[in-house]
Amino acid sequence: MSQQKPLIIDCHGHYTTAPKALENWRNAQIAGIKDPASMPKVSDLKISDDELRESIETNQLKLMKERGSDLTIFSPRASFMAHHIGDFNISSTWAAICNELCYRVSQLFPDHFIPAAMLPQSPGVDPATCIPELEKCVKEYGNVGINLNPDPSGGHWTSPPLSDKAWYPIYEKMVEHNIPAMVHVSTSCNACFHTTGAHYLNADTTAFMQCLTSDLFKDFPTLKFIIPHGGGAVPYHWGRFRGLAQELKKPLLKDHLLNNIFFDTCVYHQPGIDLLTKVIPVDNILFASEMIGAVRGIDPETGNYYDDTKRYIEASTIVVGDDRYKVYEGNARRVFPRLDAALKAKSL
Amino acid sequence: MSQQKPLIIDCHGHYTTAPKALENWRNAQIAGIKDPASMPKVSDLKISDDELRESIETNQLKLMKERGSDLTIFSPRASFMAHHIGDFNISSTWAAICNELCYRVSQLFPDHFIPAAMLPQSPGVDPATCIPELEKCVKEYGNVGINLNPDPSGGHWTSPPLSDKAWYPIYEKMVEHNIPAMVHVSTSCNACFHTTGAHYLNADTTAFMQCLTSDLFKDFPTLKFIIPHGGGAVPYHWGRFRGLAQELKKPLLKDHLLNNIFFDTCVYHQPGIDLLTKVIPVDNILFASEMIGAVRGIDPETGNYYDDTKRYIEASTIVVGDDRYKVYEGNARRVFPRLDAALKAKSL
Repeated sequence: MSQQKPLIIDCHGHYTTAPKALENWRNAQIAGIKDPASMPKVSDLKISDDELRESIETNQLKLMKERGSDLTIFSPRASFMAHHIGDFNISSTWAAICNELCYRVSQLFPDHFIPAAMLPQSPGVDPATCIPELEKCVKEYGNVGINLNPDPSGGHWTSPPLSDKAWYPIYEKMVEHNIPAMVHVSTSCNACFHTTGAHYLNADTTAFMQCLTSDLFKDFPTLKFIIPHGGGAVPYHWGRFRGLAQELKKPLLKDHLLNNIFFDTCVYHQPGIDLLTKVIPVDNILFASEMIGAVRGIDPETGNYYDDTKRYIEASTIVVGDDRYKVYEGNARRVFPRLDAALKAKSL
Repeated sequence: MSQQKPLIIDCHGHYTTAPKALENWRNAQIAGIKDPASMPKVSDLKISDDELRESIETNQLKLMKERGSDLTIFSPRASFMAHHIGDFNISSTWAAICNELCYRVSQLFPDHFIPAAMLPQSPGVDPATCIPELEKCVKEYGNVGINLNPDPSGGHWTSPPLSDKAWYPIYEKMVEHNIPAMVHVSTSCNACFHTTGAHYLNADTTAFMQCLTSDLFKDFPTLKFIIPHGGGAVPYHWGRFRGLAQELKKPLLKDHLLNNIFFDTCVYHQPGIDLLTKVIPVDNILFASEMIGAVRGIDPETGNYYDDTKRYIEASTIVVGDDRYKVYEGNARRVFPRLDAALKAKSL
């Protein structure tokens, strides 16, 4: 398989371009928290297949074709998850709507999109309440992964660390269904943290360190996390993290964490990708762009889109030969076994 | 000057090795918050010059000589600042004690240590209350900089962003006295954040982004911040930050921030230092090790101390010739004008 041109699998795409009706419905729902009489029904949201098709064909799919990626693992818009808004019921209704839309996109474009689910998390609410939505998404919608928010408070960090047993019901279901989680926060409602410039990266670093200080993966040896945005600050400070693990009498990071933790390639310049691929073993790196996302412009230093991360991999002198197959395809098949099964069912 | 061997100035050292009596006094002070009858007096703390000498000679100075650095900008132990404990009076007494100790070290070893001050910050208290301690440290103790904690709550991030006018009284004094601030948090009391593995790096990234989204340096064109720990996640994600500035219609980062923001070299492996020095202009990089600090071990991959950052600069093929003078000495003299003046007063 590695001799052929690899499938280019982008493991990190959000539905950031959904028809405006979705945002309008969400705003009505938020207004309905204070004024229950105005709370919209789920059935008030009407988005046709044609509208979905257009929103994808003119955006993500257009760029995928231009840039040469084949398949995107597609989840609801991260910044719109906003788990801090309202209570569990609000999050539950909202997650169900967003997950259904990603499912419909995957049905309209089965060769190009496969869904990953957001969870109906809510601050202070037992994560186990998310299991029905998780199971529906896996069993009925063919989701191959989930996005897990380590801070549903939106920048106040009031939940316990990911190593806390409060999260274990989610992990048990992940293991049971053979799905990984991308650890991904949502909008910051703390004025200290810019959402995509600080909160996202901080959460990545924080999640890694929560795993490092714990023995979570002794309890769940097959649990898999993808740390997005190139792992936050982690690869850049790999020496620091190796040294901290040593101080804490933990095993070498490759044994302690790298059977379970993977990094995506959402790093928007060549030197960053080169650092990532030099420092982190190739088996732990999954291709991703997070387009159309936080950084949509063209880099004046290169003339190319910042988030056209495939160019950085193509220009890499570190990720070559069979390693390129791993980053583009092989690792995604291994980390997302349900994706692998779905591809094999199509003889891919 | 650049033709001679440069002075090796380490701009980031904390007094992590103070005699045990200091920690005992602090513990008594913390106990005294609940039990005022047991509150110790400042005069209860007795540390002799010999004790100070020994704590430095067997630790920082020993390593400075072994590793070949000449002068450390020396401030109280960052994790012990713990501004979240008690109220302003508690912080005020504690800061005065810690700053006096660093001053005494600088008097005992005037060729090797020059002090930078911690501030008596306290959550929810007007930063202007810190000015008397700041001015005492500059005028009486010869401090050349301060450490400014953007989150005195210790991981709850309840203060406004650094761009908020609440911080301006501090900035006015910094400009008046020509001193920079290292933006440095203290211990995390939020279970989500490991202090040195997550909170420190997150704060670095957060502070940079707070500056990026604001026009702080239009109001204070000569204000200078050092972002420690290699700038947190910033250099690794430099493309992301350039792209975010572009989306926000800000000037290029070199014009928007790099007249005012500097990064230290506390990055504990060669690939990280190489990334930093490749991406960030050499004029914005100051040599530092933060020894003896968070990562005290020996890297089994190199056989050298993780925090012996001079080795990474010496091995660099990017920082060569006159650039090495800038990183070791020239930039520190420019960013810390009072340090430059103190050196010149000694004909250095």
